[in-house]
Amino acid sequence: MSERSTYIDHLWAVIPAGGSGTRLWPLSRAARPKFLLPLLGERSLIQQTFDRVARLTPPDQILIVCGPAHAAAIARQLPELPDDNIIIEPTPNGTAPALALANALIQQADPRAILASFASDHDISDIDAFKSSVRTAVAAAQLGDLVTIGLSPTRPETGYGYIERSDDIRVQVPSGTAYRATRFVEKPNAETAERYIETGRFLWNASMFIWRVDSFATELRRLQPMILAGTTDIAESWNTRERERVLAQVWSTLPNVTIDTAVMEQAERVAVVPSQMGWSDVGDWHGLGELLEKDDQGNAIHGDLVQIDTTNSVVWSSGHRKIATIGVSNVVIVDTPDALLVVDRTRGQDVRMVVDTLKGEPNPRLV
Amino acid sequence: MSERSTYIDHLWAVIPAGGSGTRLWPLSRAARPKFLLPLLGERSLIQQTFDRVARLTPPDQILIVCGPAHAAAIARQLPELPDDNIIIEPTPNGTAPALALANALIQQADPRAILASFASDHDISDIDAFKSSVRTAVAAAQLGDLVTIGLSPTRPETGYGYIERSDDIRVQVPSGTAYRATRFVEKPNAETAERYIETGRFLWNASMFIWRVDSFATELRRLQPMILAGTTDIAESWNTRERERVLAQVWSTLPNVTIDTAVMEQAERVAVVPSQMGWSDVGDWHGLGELLEKDDQGNAIHGDLVQIDTTNSVVWSSGHRKIATIGVSNVVIVDTPDALLVVDRTRGQDVRMVVDTLKGEPNPRLV
Repeated sequence: MSERSTYIDHLWAVIPAGGSGTRLWPLSRAARPKFLLPLLGERSLIQQTFDRVARLTPPDQILIVCGPAHAAAIARQLPELPDDNIIIEPTPNGTAPALALANALIQQADPRAILASFASDHDISDIDAFKSSVRTAVAAAQLGDLVTIGLSPTRPETGYGYIERSDDIRVQVPSGTAYRATRFVEKPNAETAERYIETGRFLWNASMFIWRVDSFATELRRLQPMILAGTTDIAESWNTRERERVLAQVWSTLPNVTIDTAVMEQAERVAVVPSQMGWSDVGDWHGLGELLEKDDQGNAIHGDLVQIDTTNSVVWSSGHRKIATIGVSNVVIVDTPDALLVVDRTRGQDVRMVVDTLKGEPNPRLV
Repeated sequence: MSERSTYIDHLWAVIPAGGSGTRLWPLSRAARPKFLLPLLGERSLIQQTFDRVARLTPPDQILIVCGPAHAAAIARQLPELPDDNIIIEPTPNGTAPALALANALIQQADPRAILASFASDHDISDIDAFKSSVRTAVAAAQLGDLVTIGLSPTRPETGYGYIERSDDIRVQVPSGTAYRATRFVEKPNAETAERYIETGRFLWNASMFIWRVDSFATELRRLQPMILAGTTDIAESWNTRERERVLAQVWSTLPNVTIDTAVMEQAERVAVVPSQMGWSDVGDWHGLGELLEKDDQGNAIHGDLVQIDTTNSVVWSSGHRKIATIGVSNVVIVDTPDALLVVDRTRGQDVRMVVDTLKGEPNPRLV
């Protein structure tokens, strides 16, 4: 059976490539965002994301939406991706305008298309589960629902949004089940997160959305008519000499909002596919350390290290310098040519505080 | 009162400058040993040592004994020191041949000289106490004793040798008292060190030796006739065209032994001056951290650091890179252009294990 035969008909994948991955500083920087970094293996996170969706649909049906600063790097990292499939946002906006523009462009190319959107910088270890979940979500999307894949939570995480599902089955297919989603909720506090887990009905929102392009356009017309009108105008000019002018004129007038706030939280028919696919947002150094291979002392080491009595630590070296550790535990050490981070593993989230502090530095390349 | 008037007559100071300060890696290296580093203030440890002894005797009566690799750096760091006062050992030997050669050269220049030897890489905070102790030691040396200054221990340290004193007073002068020393003992175990402290008769051996050059030559004749003969031969050729030849020929035949083993432990008339002078051997990063100024959280920071919830730590930056720490305690972080160390404060002694490991590296500059 050839790879081709597993493609899902009319599936178009969209990969919004925004965000720098502040919590993975000093490896990630504005100019070298997390999705461009080969954090897990030899290929970068966006390359791995591309590889995953390329099992479901051909490269000419994969679009990446990114900022002007990263287009060249993305083009070089993904030689199979057609040039025209890199959509450049003139200025950063939320995911709502980005997905609306992708939706309009895809709808123009294929009115029967199913759009599936995936973050550019997450990790998924169980590819078969991923593929099954997408198939299930596509089945639900065919009914006209806006569908999301929700991850079965493994801990009462306060760093993610949650999706509550009902028991109403929207669709049941060999690859899985989609339920009607009751609501989207923002990052909860610890107590609320515990309660969510106990109910068994809350799933992590990992920004995986699947819908028919016409269903989405309909919801957009109702909820965000300005975004629909603007992105439709842009799409109509896309293959003309007017593209740059219209894009420049319209883009900055669109509201900077996320797809969750602008559409999903208010949409009428939302379904969710519960899934376990070994998902991680690779959000901070602790999380990345969990995904890396560990030695007998629980250390995840990238690069050349001389260590004595070092345990449960993450050491990431850019490879330019010799690193030695003695008698340290539960720390993360990240060494780059111009910046060094030493952080307790439990404080990985606070790395963004350092980045905020450094924004005032004379050397803008530091952040 | 001019500075000159406080000189001690016939006093010659000798500063053996050997050892690289392995435990202060990666700042200290074979090519950039501890004594050349400005660890405590703007001047290097050997400059500070020179400054101290220059309060007791003029620069032309100060000799430095060093290896060929460090002569140029020492000459540049100490412009007041006459060229001829840098004595270069052709190959590394113990302190016994080095002090014997210095003794012979000084005796040749001034038969009534008192030689006082001080390590090149220790710190002394109470200069008045230092000066008083030297004066007392000189008074005892005038009687013909080999004299050592012993530091009153402040903790049961197992990293130093000890000197036991008797109650026999050898000399009592306004600046202090010298006692007959009973014995020199090597680094004790913890239990023995505790017992030493309890007796109140044990002092730390900080390699401060003071003697009349003729007394030392007499003891050397008895205990180490080969070293006396060899160094006398070298001294006699010193101001002739034969110096290089004789030095090269004789030096390698001399035994590689310390002055403690070769002479002090076996000498007949040894005196010790107990002293408290705020002494430290600046032996490891923890010790250096104790000597540096600390912030409110007990951190000793050298260089530019962005820190969040960091306590009781030592951060030494070479200044080339941005360093950030979050949520770490009791660690030492030392950042240099080609090597990085992260070590628990209590494990400072083990840094030498890293250096031993790195000796096999292709890049010899690393150690």
